[in-house]
Order: sequence, then structure tokens, then C-alpha cells
Amino acid sequence: MDLNSDLGEGFGIWRLGDDTALLGIITSANVACGFHAGDPSTMRRVCEQAARNGVRIGAQVSYRDLAGFGRRFIDADPAELADEVLYQIGALDACARAAGTEVVYVKPHGALYNATVHHEKQAEAVVSGIKAFKDLPVLGLPGSQLLAKAEAAGLRGVQEAFADRGYTPQGTLVPRSEPNALLTDTAQVVERAKRLLDGEIIAVDGTVIKTRAESLCVHGDTPGAVHHAQAVREALGTVSAFA
Amino acid sequence: MDLNSDLGEGFGIWRLGDDTALLGIITSANVACGFHAGDPSTMRRVCEQAARNGVRIGAQVSYRDLAGFGRRFIDADPAELADEVLYQIGALDACARAAGTEVVYVKPHGALYNATVHHEKQAEAVVSGIKAFKDLPVLGLPGSQLLAKAEAAGLRGVQEAFADRGYTPQGTLVPRSEPNALLTDTAQVVERAKRLLDGEIIAVDGTVIKTRAESLCVHGDTPGAVHHAQAVREALGTVSAFA
Amino acid sequence: MDLNSDLGEGFGIWRLGDDTALLGIITSANVACGFHAGDPSTMRRVCEQAARNGVRIGAQVSYRDLAGFGRRFIDADPAELADEVLYQIGALDACARAAGTEVVYVKPHGALYNATVHHEKQAEAVVSGIKAFKDLPVLGLPGSQLLAKAEAAGLRGVQEAFADRGYTPQGTLVPRSEPNALLTDTAQVVERAKRLLDGEIIAVDGTVIKTRAESLCVHGDTPGAVHHAQAVREALGTVSAFA
Amino acid sequence: MDLNSDLGEGFGIWRLGDDTALLGIITSANVACGFHAGDPSTMRRVCEQAARNGVRIGAQVSYRDLAGFGRRFIDADPAELADEVLYQIGALDACARAAGTEVVYVKPHGALYNATVHHEKQAEAVVSGIKAFKDLPVLGLPGSQLLAKAEAAGLRGVQEAFADRGYTPQGTLVPRSEPNALLTDTAQVVERAKRLLDGEIIAVDGTVIKTRAESLCVHGDTPGAVHHAQAVREALGTVSAFA
Repeated sequence: MDLNSDLGEGFGIWRLGDDTALLGIITSANVACGFHAGDPSTMRRVCEQAARNGVRIGAQVSYRDLAGFGRRFIDADPAELADEVLYQIGALDACARAAGTEVVYVKPHGALYNATVHHEKQAEAVVSGIKAFKDLPVLGLPGSQLLAKAEAAGLRGVQEAFADRGYTPQGTLVPRSEPNALLTDTAQVVERAKRLLDGEIIAVDGTVIKTRAESLCVHGDTPGAVHHAQAVREALGTVSAFA
Repeated sequence: MDLNSDLGEGFGIWRLGDDTALLGIITSANVACGFHAGDPSTMRRVCEQAARNGVRIGAQVSYRDLAGFGRRFIDADPAELADEVLYQIGALDACARAAGTEVVYVKPHGALYNATVHHEKQAEAVVSGIKAFKDLPVLGLPGSQLLAKAEAAGLRGVQEAFADRGYTPQGTLVPRSEPNALLTDTAQVVERAKRLLDGEIIAVDGTVIKTRAESLCVHGDTPGAVHHAQAVREALGTVSAFA
Repeated sequence: MDLNSDLGEGFGIWRLGDDTALLGIITSANVACGFHAGDPSTMRRVCEQAARNGVRIGAQVSYRDLAGFGRRFIDADPAELADEVLYQIGALDACARAAGTEVVYVKPHGALYNATVHHEKQAEAVVSGIKAFKDLPVLGLPGSQLLAKAEAAGLRGVQEAFADRGYTPQGTLVPRSEPNALLTDTAQVVERAKRLLDGEIIAVDGTVIKTRAESLCVHGDTPGAVHHAQAVREALGTVSAFA
Repeated sequence: MDLNSDLGEGFGIWRLGDDTALLGIITSANVACGFHAGDPSTMRRVCEQAARNGVRIGAQVSYRDLAGFGRRFIDADPAELADEVLYQIGALDACARAAGTEVVYVKPHGALYNATVHHEKQAEAVVSGIKAFKDLPVLGLPGSQLLAKAEAAGLRGVQEAFADRGYTPQGTLVPRSEPNALLTDTAQVVERAKRLLDGEIIAVDGTVIKTRAESLCVHGDTPGAVHHAQAVREALGTVSAFA
């Protein structure tokens, strides 16, 4: 099982999350590329730390929305969105290469991640932007348009699960605006990780969801995030980046 | 003699200059990278047109200053400036590669170009950012700290002259705020180009300045710019990109 | 009949439309407030010109989206959107007051104008932001949520018609992506203006739509815009700002 | 003695300092206006809290520089800088009025504060922007061009001292890049406050500097900031906003 987390989500003077601690725990770092967060110096520092820790670097591409942290749907023109994705991957890859490594996968951030579950045109745009750079694997929600379009275009789609989010019986995430959206108890998070090793996720109503998730996402910007991430890592036993 | 010009200097809905016409005239395109101008779609379109026209692509890196079009000195921290240069080159290179070509040189824009004539720390920062990407040639003013630091760091420094700017007897540009800053007469611009082939620039007071400029800059955002560029091209006879 | 147009839609070095010519024709200027266009110096200059021409100033509030010129729907949080509206009106009002006048109405721009035709929460947010500043009149499409919410909140809703846009039989605008979205022929534009004086708009299929529009919008950023605006002004005979 | 602090210096998801705690201690809040920090919702929330606490609101105007937090000198055109100051005050005043209060003074932020100690043109620009809004008092360093230009233009200049910064024998601040720039010991900060009541500041070499400072600045974004601010408040005994 791969363990991924969002990193480098500060901007200028502002910081978010404990990148250094998480880089000692995870195997894949989704690094912000400047559109929802991530100034060039932060990007480069995170890449250098990731390289030193043997953590792989993915481009966490986003709508252009610093004020909204990329968490608001933008009805972007697909052709322009593809170009923005290409721009962000290129910028981050330069930082990664300066650190002796490179961008090896892509994961959309926030509202773009959520939009591309259903929005075919934007899912195609993200895939198009990635392919314009290089045929990189894409992390996404099982059943999403994003993974469907990626695979149809010859990219590797990597199914992802979330360690600290509630699931509906249908296998989608409980929206943040509803109860049980977040698992805040360490025991629950650990249980999620363990069940995942058996290919199962327990929904909020107890339904057992079958999953082939290869990567597990832990969040870094909530209280206790590092503690949860560490507990998940221990629960998983061996972790290794997806191939 | 190489012929270069600043391209892709629109942003979003806004346009500046006639990129398409200039791409039929010049040999090297200094493409804006998003910090003073240049959204990803503009960058990609210019790269594609340049590739089709056999025009080489350079990264026109800038301070982060859309509101000021990169024409205002910013006392940026050198380490952060280096990272911003790296970010911009990487983003443009992704666009260039998507168009089947790549970034083959760097030219700072506006206030950063002027600052790095004298500002050692910022000149070093620009060079450091370039080297973090790749050992690319740098266009700059003869005698500038930028070229000195570039060459000291093992980069090729390419001396540049301006087709439409007035020169002081000392070989620096007459500031835009003073008379004779701009050559507006086509005959003068043509004369500048012809004398340059003999290694000479005539200053505003008639002084003959010896130069080894290998690239001549024509501007694209002034009235008659394309006409001037065309006249310069004809005056030069053969043009070819610097090696 | 009032005659309104969007002004001050440049940013930094970039310009859009011929503000000076339009200010000699229209009675109400919808001035960009910095979120989709409009730097402070442009805002202040337009306010000063408007004041000299006796043209009234309205705040053309927008989503925060310079890159998309405010033409893309953003799923903004209503409370934050209200605060952004308040911020923009306050900033423009300071510019207007420095020019000896003040902001006397509000018209949402682009995607926000279109969204608030149907989106109740965002319509309420715009109204809430306006009321937090002052009880100003609001320009909008007849039948829109924006006007409904404005009137429910005690604001004056001013119905607006468009001189150069095609109408569906239902009285909505033909989307820009479809044929007949724009009237490009001066005779058609003049006919639109004349029929409007009789309270009628002719839809693209010939249907006669009854309207009580008090303000007619002419665009300023298209080829021939100033010529059209002048023709509309002459066709209307007397123009006067809505009370 | 007035007690002031910089507030509302977050942006979007990012936070900086403990605004709520400081608003229980200080008498004057320098609120960020969106150019170096401060989104509209943060601005409005801080204004509402300040109004509830009886804390007066000042506009903390800045260069347009979110990425640099306004801490980098920008060689801005004075006329444009004046317009940016006007814009920022207007935007904040709208937020303040929505909270039932108003902006009653101005204090430049960061690099603009430092630049206007010596830079006559930018000092004049800040004063010009303020006067275009209203004749508001200006906080500044004793002996600064900012206060000189403000007073020459008929504005009230309010001399300010710093609770936690080291002073040179000449009465200027020790640059942050040098030792003793910051007082980190609570006892020192308290001593600074007490001596100030006697019109004295002790420089880093022991020199006694005479001062007529009417407002004392405590910072909010450093570790222990709130604790220091509380200690200063107690040391001062009675505090009251400058008239």
C-alpha cells in the first residue's frame, strides 16, 4: 500500500501542515504547484526534503484560486484547464529535477479532484494536460471520470482511498458539510487502514465496500494529522509506492 | 546576427503586440512565463507558433508583478528570486516540449533585466535559477553583472543590442524617462541594424561604441513595431540564431 | 431610457475598449473594481472622466478572477461572496469620491451576472454585500433571482436590456456559444433601441417580448462598439439616468 | 499611551497571529487591506470584533505583494501607489462601516513603512492617497519623511514606538538581519513600555533616546506575542487611543 499526503500547501509567509514530519511517514507527496498554494521556494524545499527521504513527488494540480485554496469549483474552459495543468506540472518538475528527482504522478487538488469525479470535459482536460507533459500515472477516486478518461488515454489510473474520511454505502465520500465526514478518532483511522489491506472499506452505515485501492491518503492540515498518519503507517506494516 | 523579440505578453482576455507577425520575422522569441504576463494558454500557443516558424524559444523570466508588468524593481530575496526563475523556466519548457521544442535560452524581463545590470545578488540569483534548471545561454547587456555572473558560472553570455533604443556614450540605454530614449524613425532603426553588422552603435551624441552584440532586440508592443522589425530584418540581410 | 456600458476593464499595462469615447455617449458607467479587471489607477481615471462628463458611476462587481476576466462561474461561498462585493464597492466608492462623485448603483459582471439569474444563494449574497454598504439600486435581467432578491430586501431593481444581444422567445439571452448571440449590424442595433422605447424586444424567431427595461446596455470591447453606441444614443433621442 | 498591533494578516485558508486575543488588549488595530494580506471576509470579521471590543480601526496599507507579504521594497510609480492606498482605505472603510464603525487612521505596512522613512516620493504618494480619501492621522516613525509629508499636507502625524524592537543610538530600528533586532525577553519589553511613559527609549548601546511617541506597537505574529502584549498593557497602566 502506498501512503500519500498533500504537502507544500503554504504560500509566502503562510504555512499549513507539518511537511517535515509527514515526509518521515509517507511514500508519495502530492506537492502544491502554485495555483491553490505553493510558492516556488516552498515547492523546491519540499522537493529537496522528499528526495532526501526517498519520498516520491506527484504534482497536485489545481484551479487557479489562491483565495479559495482551490476548494471552489471553477467552470474553467477545458482547453485552458489543460494548459494550466501542463504549466503546473512543468513548474514542479523543474523544482523536482533541481533536487535530483522528478514528478512521477499527478493528483488533482480539492475542487478539481471532486469535479473530475463526474465532469467529463474537465476530467479529459486534466488528462490532456498530463499527456502533453508525459504519460504519468493519475491518482483518483475509484469510479471517477478522471480515472476512466486517464485509462482510456493510456495512462495508469491509481485508485485511492482516504484514511480519515467517512464513506457512503455507494463508495463516495461523505461531503464535508455533513456529519461523519471526518474520522477524528485514531482507532477508527487505524481500523480503516487495516481493513483496506483486506480490500474493504466500512461505510458510515456499516456497509462493506470492496476496493482495490493502491494508495491511501492521509491529511496533513488537521489537528492530530501527524499522529494519525503515524498510526496509519504502523497499522499498514510495510508501505511501498505504487509501481 | 540573431533577431529577438518579447512575445506572449498578454494575460487572459488582454493582448499586447502582434505575436503572429513577429514570429515571421525574428529568430528568437523571448516568451513571457506568467509572472509579468503570459497565461498558460498564451504560452502554449506562442510555443506552437514558434515551433512551426522555426523560431527558438527563450524564457523571459520576471519578478512576480502582473499589476506592474514586471517593470518595477522589487527588492526580492535572492534565494526566492532564484526559485522563481527556476519555476518560470520549468513552466515554459513544459509548454515548449508539448509543442515539440524546448527552452534554449533565458532573458530577464523589464525591471529584472535592468536591475541585474548592476545588482550583483539578483544577477547571481537569476544565474542560480537558470543553472538549477539547465546550463542555458543568457541574453544581457554588454558589461552587465548578469553576463559577468553567468560566464563566471559557466553559462554562455550572449551580448544583446537594441534596435530602437537610444544609447549613452557609455554604452548604456537612455532611460525611458529621458528624450531620445526611443528611436521612432524607421531610417534610424535601419541604420542601427546596419552599423551593428560592423560592430558599431552610434550613441545619441554621435559617439561610436564598439560592440560584439550577437543578438538584436526589436520590440513588439509599440506602434509600427512590426514594420520596424521587418525593416531591421531586411537591413540585416541574413539572420541566424546565436549558436 | 438610461444607457449603460462596462468601463475601466483594463489592468496594468493592458487596455480594453475605448472608455473615453463611450463616456461621451452613455449615462451610466459600470466600472470594474479590481476583481476581474480594473487597477486602482484605471478606476480613479475612469471615475474622474465620468464625473467630468456627468456620467453616473456603478460598481461592476465580479468574482475574483483576473485570469478568466470574471467570465467563469465560481462556486463561491455566499458569505465570502457578499464580503467580496462589499470590498469592491468600497474600493470604487473611494475612487469616485476622490473624483467628487460616488457609486450610485451596482451591476454584477460576467459570470456573476449570469449565475445570479438563477442561483438564489449567490443572488442573495450579492444583495447582502450591497446592503452592507448602502441601499443602492441593482441592474439585472428581468425575471432574475438577482432582481427578485434585491426587491425583497428593499433595494430598487432596475431592469436592463441589451442593445447588441440576441434574445430567445422566453426573454433570456442567446448564449454566446450559439448563432445569433450577437447583433453585429448597426441597423439591427438601432431597431432594438427604437422598439425598446415602445417596450418591446424582438426575439431571434420574431416573437415580440414585452419589457419594462429602464436601462439599455451597449458593449464597449467589440469592434465597432463605439459606432454602435453612438447610433443607439441617436436612436433613443433623449437619454437620462434611471431615477 | 495608545497600543497598536497588526491584525487580519491571514489570507484565505491561511492564518497569522491571534487576532481575537490581541483585540482584548490593544486600543488600535492596523487591519490588512488585501494587498499584503487580508481577504474581504477576514477584514470584515476583524472589523466586527474590533467594533465589539471598542478598538479603533486603522488601514494598514501596503504594496501589492501577497507573495512577499509586503516586506519587499517595490519601486512603484508614486501616482499609482497613491491610487493603491486610496483603494485599500476605501475597501477597508466599507468593511468597517458594515460593522458600525469606520477607518480612523492609516499606517503603512512592512516595506512601505520602511521605505517612507526616507523615500520622499513614496511618502508623498501615501499622503496623497490618504488625503484623496479623507484627512486621517498617520502613524509613523519619528523623523520619517512619511510624518514630515503628512504634517506638511495638514494631516496629523502620530509618532510611534515599538515594544519589541531594538533601537540604534540614532533612534532608528535595528534591522531584522542584525543581532538585537528583536526584544524577546518579557522583562525587556515591559521595561521598554515603562520608560516610554517617561518619554525615553533605551537604545541597544544604552543611549537614552528622548521620544514623544503617542502609540506603542506590539507585534502579533511571533511566539509569545500575546503574552508580551498583555505584559505591555499592564505595564502601561491606563491606555487610550491617540486623539
